[in-house]
Parts: sequence; structure tokens; C-alpha cells
Amino acid sequence: MTTAPPPITLDDVRAAAARLHGIAHRTPVLRSRTLDALVGAETLLKCENFQRIGAFKFRGAYHAASRLTPEQRARGIAAYSSGNHAQAVALAARELGTSAVIVMPEDTPRSKRAATEALGAEIVTYDRYTGDRAAIAEALAAARGLTLIPPYEHPDVIAGQGTAALELLEDEGEVGALVVPVGGGGLIAGSATAAKGLHPGIRVVGVEPEAGDDTRRSLAEGRRVTVPMPRTIADGQAIDTPGELTFSVNRRLVDAIALVTDDEIRAAMRFAFERLKIVIEPSGATPLAALLAGHVPDLPDRVGVILSGGNIDTDRFARLCADGD
Amino acid sequence: MTTAPPPITLDDVRAAAARLHGIAHRTPVLRSRTLDALVGAETLLKCENFQRIGAFKFRGAYHAASRLTPEQRARGIAAYSSGNHAQAVALAARELGTSAVIVMPEDTPRSKRAATEALGAEIVTYDRYTGDRAAIAEALAAARGLTLIPPYEHPDVIAGQGTAALELLEDEGEVGALVVPVGGGGLIAGSATAAKGLHPGIRVVGVEPEAGDDTRRSLAEGRRVTVPMPRTIADGQAIDTPGELTFSVNRRLVDAIALVTDDEIRAAMRFAFERLKIVIEPSGATPLAALLAGHVPDLPDRVGVILSGGNIDTDRFARLCADGD
Repeated sequence: MTTAPPPITLDDVRAAAARLHGIAHRTPVLRSRTLDALVGAETLLKCENFQRIGAFKFRGAYHAASRLTPEQRARGIAAYSSGNHAQAVALAARELGTSAVIVMPEDTPRSKRAATEALGAEIVTYDRYTGDRAAIAEALAAARGLTLIPPYEHPDVIAGQGTAALELLEDEGEVGALVVPVGGGGLIAGSATAAKGLHPGIRVVGVEPEAGDDTRRSLAEGRRVTVPMPRTIADGQAIDTPGELTFSVNRRLVDAIALVTDDEIRAAMRFAFERLKIVIEPSGATPLAALLAGHVPDLPDRVGVILSGGNIDTDRFARLCADGD
Repeated sequence: MTTAPPPITLDDVRAAAARLHGIAHRTPVLRSRTLDALVGAETLLKCENFQRIGAFKFRGAYHAASRLTPEQRARGIAAYSSGNHAQAVALAARELGTSAVIVMPEDTPRSKRAATEALGAEIVTYDRYTGDRAAIAEALAAARGLTLIPPYEHPDVIAGQGTAALELLEDEGEVGALVVPVGGGGLIAGSATAAKGLHPGIRVVGVEPEAGDDTRRSLAEGRRVTVPMPRTIADGQAIDTPGELTFSVNRRLVDAIALVTDDEIRAAMRFAFERLKIVIEPSGATPLAALLAGHVPDLPDRVGVILSGGNIDTDRFARLCADGD
């Protein structure tokens, strides 16, 4: 059996970082003595909730869109997304002077839909539990001559997402482990490529909601497994099967997957609010939830965390916190 | 009429900064394109919600406590506070190896009382609307031989509070105006001393809740005016008269006072949550509220803001946001 070359490398992530320089924010790394004491390790929080559009997704979307040909750019771009990738593509389109059409679930949180429209994108909706978003978006792109920017199944998207981990390690030096949320697997694929490219010994730990453990099962079985469509408060991770491209990266580079319950996610969001004074959305809170609940195996002395996003409105935040009491 | 020398100077603030170096956090300065567009000025947010104990108060409390004699330190310290000064004194005592007794209103938010106790302080409560907190604390200090660290009426406290503005201006250069919350007046007195010491042309604008405009009235009348005890969500500014020492500074250095309603404060807290992804308590939100509501007179192109604190629990935040809908 021959081993195919990896679809992206550290050099690809570095090239993405160069394109994003001055356009994406170099987000801050927060730390907290209280958190370190509770986790039992020095914990470095890469705050992608402070990224443009409030999530890491802008990195991958802008990087991919910036590499289109002038002809593609003139016709416009399309995307499908449960939320943050939508805003990311809308903002990337605006920054690059092109248009965007976004296919979005009907039950997308109000703040995410409004923010996407405010960025000038056209919205097309579908039912998350019955529709096939990829097929809808592909048909739309074909009919209008648009270029589809997928949320994770593209090397340029994955390389862009990896720049958050690259910045964290450049700014803070080596860590023993990097803990990253897993939805479709693009963020962790890029993060793992950057991390293991810089320091091969870093353990890369993904975190999924318990209801949507498709990547954990897939890694255990060595093939892509589909689970029932997860119902979880972590809407950015409501995905039933790993991406083909992302899984091909993650099966080589991801060391472990931790699972968290919705209640553990709520507790992590409250902790971030009350102690760290920052807002993180449910999907963005999963790595913190895993650390606070003691679910990260073989915890080293120093751990990096990607807090992937902070897009949640105050009404939903209040409801989630009340439900969890 | 002769003019007395100012009770504190820029050099005092610089000396306080040297003592706080490596002990207080040098908090980050956040900015937001969305905010700049809404305000109509480049807006630099000095995030004291990320300070130790979640508010600027640690600066003044630690600075004052660090200057006690060994004999005073051995006997312990006392304080009265509506919340953040309590935690600040408790943490300062712990850091300096002494004990703290805190006189606190009975209706102090749960999170603030719990955090103070967790830092090892003893709590003594009183009724905010009938008790005289200063008298209670002074009697307690006299009986037990403790040194009282007042929340604002002390040159060492004021100099410590001024270090946040000093850092902001050192890190970001000159601004046209500095917008600062006003409670007892210690933060703005220290901020104005630092700001006008560095750049005499900076306009210093204080912000009070509409229900508690004692400093605005006092500056207008040229003497300390007492108002009915304010009932406002901005509990850190529920003070009925300016301090004598702080007013002697502020009457020289403060250019204007803006007033904000509780609804404007709620809107600013929601904006900070949803767009900036940060948590600010009602008092800490008043400068942002004044800017978003267009209440800051003669707004320059570049404005500095002290976001003074972020201590609010999720339950109270949810209630405040729901009330405001």
C-alpha cells in the first residue's frame, strides 16, 4: 500500500497566513489563573470569537475566495452553511468586490441570518432535517455560474482555517496538546497540519458533541461513518458524517476525540461569561467544556485551545443558560 | 485665592504603574470596525473587564495596600464596597499575605459576594438604603486595629486607578477624548490626571447614570451636591455624592459629564455581547452607552474608553436583557 501525499502541508497554511495578513485579525490569546487551576494545566485560549464575523470561518472562506480567477470572481460565489461560514463567505465576497448567494437552514439563529444579510449576501433557505444542502447549493451554483466555496471540503479552506493554530503556536511557542472543535473537520484538519508541521509531538485532540460523534466513530473504524443527524445546542457541529477530504487529513493527524454533553457545553459558556468575560457560542465552547469536565485524555502541562466562535444572540444565550440550571 | 497643589500627579500614577507591574494585568485594547462606524470615531476600548477580579478596582486597592507599613499589614485591612472594590481588596490582601474584612450591601449581586468570599475575605453586611457604610467600616477598623482602604477617597487608590488610562495612552498614543464611568470619582480622577499629564489637550468626559448625576450637578454648581440615593442598574455608580478628594481633582480636570438611561446601558451591554463578544457589567457599559447613544459632546476623531468591569452573572444579565426588550 502506498501512502498518498497529504492534501495540505504546513507550507500551504503559511501561504494562507500571508494572504490573510492585514485582512483577518490576528486574534488575542487569553489566559486565566482560575482556568489553569481548574483544568490543571496552563491553558492558552486562541480567541477566534474576536475574529471578523465572530468566528474562525472567515480565514478559510477569504483564503479560498482570494484564489479564484478574475473570471470566477466576476461571476460570484455561493456557499451552504449552518451559520458562520455564511457570514464568512458574505464578508469575503464584499472584501473582494464580488457577490455571494448563501444556502442556509431555515432554523438558523436570528443573529447569524441577519448578520449575513447585512453583509450584502442573498439568502436561500432549506429544511435542515430533510434537504440536502450540498445538492441545493451545487445546483444553484451550476445554474448561475457561481463558484461554490464549501465549508470544509476544500484544501484552500482547510489551509485558511489552520492559520489560527499557526498564530497560536507562533505567538506562544510549543504546547503539549491542542484542543479543537470538530464539525465537518476543516478547522481541526488545518490546525493539525499546522501544529504537527511545526512540532510533530503535539497531541491534537478534537471535541464533538456527544450527540454527533461521527468523527470519533469514523476514526475508531478507520472509515467515514454516518450517524443520525445530531440534535445538539452546538449548531455548528450538527453534522452527521466527516468530510472525505477532511477525514483523509484527520485520520493521519488527530490523536483523540473527546465528547461533551449539552449541559457541559452550557457550563463552559457560563464559565467563559462569568470568569473570562467573553462570549462563546455552543460549538466554540466544546473544547473548554471538555477541559473543564476532565474529558481530555493525557492532559499535558500546557494546552492550546481554539475557541472557534462567539456568534450567539443574548436571547438564545439566556435561554440556554436558564435550561441548564 | 491661592491654588493648592493637586493631590495626585502624573508621577504618582507612574509610580503606581511600577508597583502594579507584573501583578495587575496590562489589559488589552479592543477595537471594532462596526463600533467605529456606529460611533463615528475610532474607538479604543481599554478592557478592564479582563483585569484581575474583573474590574479596574484591583489597581487602586493593591496599590494602596502595597504602601502600608509592615505593622499595618500585619494587622489587616478593611473596606466597604458595592462589589468590585470588595474583591479587589480581598485579592490585594491575599497577594500581600494579610487579611481583609469587607462591609458590603445586603443586595450585592450573588457573583460578587461569592467571589469575595472565595478570595478569603470576611464579609459584614448592611442595608444600602439605611446604613452608613463608611461609618460601619470605620468603627470596625477602629475596633480591630485594621487599616481602611476606601473605594476612592485616597490618593494611593486614585493613582492606582489612573494606571489603566496611562496604559491605554502609552499603548495607543494620543486620543482626542477619554470617556470614563463616574461613580465616586476615583477612576476618572486618576484617568484625568494621567491623561492631562501626558497630553493636556485630551478632553476628559465622565459618564453617570441619569438617576445618579451627582457629579454632573456638582461640577455645574462648583460644589459637592448630594442627590437622592440613585436606583439604577449601574450598581457600581449607585452613589449620591462625589468624594471630597475626588471632586477636588475632577473639578479641575473633567471637561464634561454625559448621562445615560438604564435602557441605553442595556443596549450597550447587548452590543458588547453580540458584536464585541465581551461581557461588561452595567457600570462598565456606561461609556459605551453614551457613545452609542450620541451623548458625548464634541466627539473627536479618536476616542479612548475605559470599560471598567465585567462582573455580572448570567442570571442577572439575562434578566436585564429581557427587561430591556
